[in-house]
Amino acid sequence: MSNAYHPPSALFCRQCGHALERRIPDDGDSKLRGVCPACATIHYDNPLCVVGTVPTWGATGEQVLLCQRNIEPRKGKWTLPAGFLELGETTAAGAARETDEEAGASIEMGELFTLMNVARVGQVHFYYRARLLSEHFNPGPESMQARLFTESEIPWDELAFSTVRQTLRRYFDDRRQGRFGFHTEDIV
Amino acid sequence: MSNAYHPPSALFCRQCGHALERRIPDDGDSKLRGVCPACATIHYDNPLCVVGTVPTWGATGEQVLLCQRNIEPRKGKWTLPAGFLELGETTAAGAARETDEEAGASIEMGELFTLMNVARVGQVHFYYRARLLSEHFNPGPESMQARLFTESEIPWDELAFSTVRQTLRRYFDDRRQGRFGFHTEDIV
Repeated sequence: MSNAYHPPSALFCRQCGHALERRIPDDGDSKLRGVCPACATIHYDNPLCVVGTVPTWGATGEQVLLCQRNIEPRKGKWTLPAGFLELGETTAAGAARETDEEAGASIEMGELFTLMNVARVGQVHFYYRARLLSEHFNPGPESMQARLFTESEIPWDELAFSTVRQTLRRYFDDRRQGRFGFHTEDIV
Repeated sequence: MSNAYHPPSALFCRQCGHALERRIPDDGDSKLRGVCPACATIHYDNPLCVVGTVPTWGATGEQVLLCQRNIEPRKGKWTLPAGFLELGETTAAGAARETDEEAGASIEMGELFTLMNVARVGQVHFYYRARLLSEHFNPGPESMQARLFTESEIPWDELAFSTVRQTLRRYFDDRRQGRFGFHTEDIV
């Protein structure tokens, strides 16, 4: 996850570079937007999608792969591999890419497991279950290390994001019950 | 759904108005971005979330509410109420807002029903099931009319978007089986 916060609203027009006005557009909209007085382009601030995986290892998925972050925010904290969805990719493809980039892990992609709204920071988080095909990892520059944890070994107080904590809790709860569901949650 | 396509990439810096360079940033990124040579701001193009509902009426949900679009694209075609997720709202809250704005319908929000990737246009679509609390609607300026349809009455060839068509198909399939699931799909 490279830049974890939403960018500030635009001050200048993306199309012509003119300084924007902050006002309600004349097209029936009801919200303040950056409107260009020169070329009329309207600038919307939209939530971002964050996509990642819960990569598991072992006959019953008893170990989960976490990455120790090598970048801010939360440098040194542990996270599931995840990052911003890029234009042109599906949420599953983005989750696979981030797993490769951050952990260098080979996976077989599974089902969507959690969908979490973090409205406070304008994000929607998607985590897919994934089966690791090897226990050899090759973490990229965004990670200090990548390693496997059993439930009791998880550094619960050293996790980078609440969506990671909640997704891991759900994973081990479902695993105990022998059945993996799909979970939605609003993080406040 | 007000503007159904993704905006073009920025040409000028949102923070200082300087003309952008299109290049791979020096921060370990691997993709072309708009980079400001004056203030170093990096500009990302991210997928957008579209959120809506399947508003149903009748003892067994035998009728679905559709809106006839009064705006481009697909003016005159029929759609489920849906639009772009706004900053600061959850996907369910956004779906409720769009249902109110486009159909003026009172609903009790249900579960997330479909999640569809439309990577070609950089969108992720979320549809929630919703129970109509009244059959009186008050469509907003984006809709020519809002009315109820049984499965056989649905104007299948006059639907505005393929995610609407697929969500309606799934809805009536699940209804026949007496059990509503959660469905993911990639629209190509």
